[in-house]
Amino acid sequence: MKLAPLGDKVVLKQLEAEETTKSGLILTSSSQEKPQEAIVVAVGPGGLVGDVNVEMVLKEGDHVIFPRYGATQIKFEGEEYLVMRQNDILAIVKD
Amino acid sequence: MKLAPLGDKVVLKQLEAEETTKSGLILTSSSQEKPQEAIVVAVGPGGLVGDVNVEMVLKEGDHVIFPRYGATQIKFEGEEYLVMRQNDILAIVKD
Amino acid sequence: MKLAPLGDKVVLKQLEAEETTKSGLILTSSSQEKPQEAIVVAVGPGGLVGDVNVEMVLKEGDHVIFPRYGATQIKFEGEEYLVMRQNDILAIVKD
Amino acid sequence: MKLAPLGDKVVLKQLEAEETTKSGLILTSSSQEKPQEAIVVAVGPGGLVGDVNVEMVLKEGDHVIFPRYGATQIKFEGEEYLVMRQNDILAIVKD
Amino acid sequence: MKLAPLGDKVVLKQLEAEETTKSGLILTSSSQEKPQEAIVVAVGPGGLVGDVNVEMVLKEGDHVIFPRYGATQIKFEGEEYLVMRQNDILAIVKD
Amino acid sequence: MKLAPLGDKVVLKQLEAEETTKSGLILTSSSQEKPQEAIVVAVGPGGLVGDVNVEMVLKEGDHVIFPRYGATQIKFEGEEYLVMRQNDILAIVKD
Amino acid sequence: MKLAPLGDKVVLKQLEAEETTKSGLILTSSSQEKPQEAIVVAVGPGGLVGDVNVEMVLKEGDHVIFPRYGATQIKFEGEEYLVMRQNDILAIVKD
Repeated sequence: MKLAPLGDKVVLKQLEAEETTKSGLILTSSSQEKPQEAIVVAVGPGGLVGDVNVEMVLKEGDHVIFPRYGATQIKFEGEEYLVMRQNDILAIVKD
Repeated sequence: MKLAPLGDKVVLKQLEAEETTKSGLILTSSSQEKPQEAIVVAVGPGGLVGDVNVEMVLKEGDHVIFPRYGATQIKFEGEEYLVMRQNDILAIVKD
Repeated sequence: MKLAPLGDKVVLKQLEAEETTKSGLILTSSSQEKPQEAIVVAVGPGGLVGDVNVEMVLKEGDHVIFPRYGATQIKFEGEEYLVMRQNDILAIVKD
Repeated sequence: MKLAPLGDKVVLKQLEAEETTKSGLILTSSSQEKPQEAIVVAVGPGGLVGDVNVEMVLKEGDHVIFPRYGATQIKFEGEEYLVMRQNDILAIVKD
Repeated sequence: MKLAPLGDKVVLKQLEAEETTKSGLILTSSSQEKPQEAIVVAVGPGGLVGDVNVEMVLKEGDHVIFPRYGATQIKFEGEEYLVMRQNDILAIVKD
Repeated sequence: MKLAPLGDKVVLKQLEAEETTKSGLILTSSSQEKPQEAIVVAVGPGGLVGDVNVEMVLKEGDHVIFPRYGATQIKFEGEEYLVMRQNDILAIVKD
Repeated sequence: MKLAPLGDKVVLKQLEAEETTKSGLILTSSSQEKPQEAIVVAVGPGGLVGDVNVEMVLKEGDHVIFPRYGATQIKFEGEEYLVMRQNDILAIVKD
């Protein structure tokens, strides 16, 4: 089973403070607080969202920075995820 | 008797914590709280909603993830349902 | 005398908990609280409302589900009614 | 002297609880509270209001139902009036 | 020196309770409270304001009714004035 | 070094209560409170701001009236300035 | 690793109170409070953001003034940054 987001939404898995990213970097955020970083696990099809035609630039596996407020938290198969609209994602972390 | 939602609205039946989905999976959410998962029980016709032409992608029987806030709760023939606009649904759960 | 709603507004008469609908069903809502169900008693002409051209799909006598918040309550000739925009109605109850 | 409302605004004179309408009906609202009914005493020219072209359907002498909130109260020549945009009027009372 | 309002703004001089209008009328508002009436002392050029093309219908010397809330108060050369957008003015008082 | 505002923004230097304007006038505001008057010290290029094409009508040296709320205060090289969008400026003071 | 902002977003590094700018100036803000000045460290591609086509005028290395409220704070590789939409930046500091 997998999640297929609607419209311009993306599903994110937030990185743990001690997690190592794909590029091997150990994240340096304070250990009390999770970093505002996540891996994109599912991407909506984009297209017409309201009266705006959205082209999706994010793709599965992207390492992104997201804002502290505004994400919708969901629990699915015992795991926690975040769902946001692509436009609310702040930046992609490039190697 | 059945419910025919207007415009881009959909009617949802929220899954109980112990309910088994169509795919046979036992949902793993904590038993104190209902999962944010539902089955679509009725879908509006879409078309012009405000100044936006909405194409319905959800269909009856879809298993969806919805946000914790924003649904309108209704009681109909003794059963509780949620009504939302299609665009507020977060994701479809695909087998 | 009758009410002629403006634009895309409709006038509703809320069903009482013990009221029997046209289809003969006894509504099952708890007796302490009125159901969120109503009969449409008057429908506006639609047309240009703001910058949106609204086509009315509701008609007099329709049995509808409406949201708990957002209706405007009015008293007319000693009777209470609700006024809403068509787009705020959640669903039509079909026999 | 008379009031000439701008744009899509209308000036209303609220009916008193004990007032008899043009059709001879004695209004049945409780005597402690004024009914949400008024007679239209002046109508703006309509036309372009913001980016919307408004056609006025109300005319002087119309008996209307207005919402409890949202009217602007003014005092003019010792009399109290309400000013609203046409679109905020709920319904016309037809004989 | 004079004020030249920008866009669709107008500058108003509020009438005092005991002031006599151009038509010779003594205003009847209670003496504790200034009437919501003013004389237009300057009118902006109109034209494109945001994405809306505004035609100014008010002119210097117009006697207008304005809403109790929403005006911006300014002090200029020791005198108090109100600044509003034309669309917020409720009505013109015609002789 | 100088400030180059973006889009339709302007940078203002608020007049002090005792300051003499270009036209030689001593401002008459109460000495406890700064007047809502300023000199424009920098003007953005205008052009497309959001979906609106803004033409700048203000220019450096203009003496303007601005609203008490809504300006963004900044400190630059030890001096305080206000930054606003041109459309929020109320009026130009003409000699 | 570097940050690639999405859409019309820019990543800023706020200047410290005692920091010397590229032009050699010692910033004069009070030492208790950081100045509202920053260096642009990454710029989004612009293009279609919502229904608006945004052309990026900011570039890496620009020295900008930003508003006290509205920035999103992020921590990345142990450093703090601000993320804003280009349109929220107040002004560029030109030498």
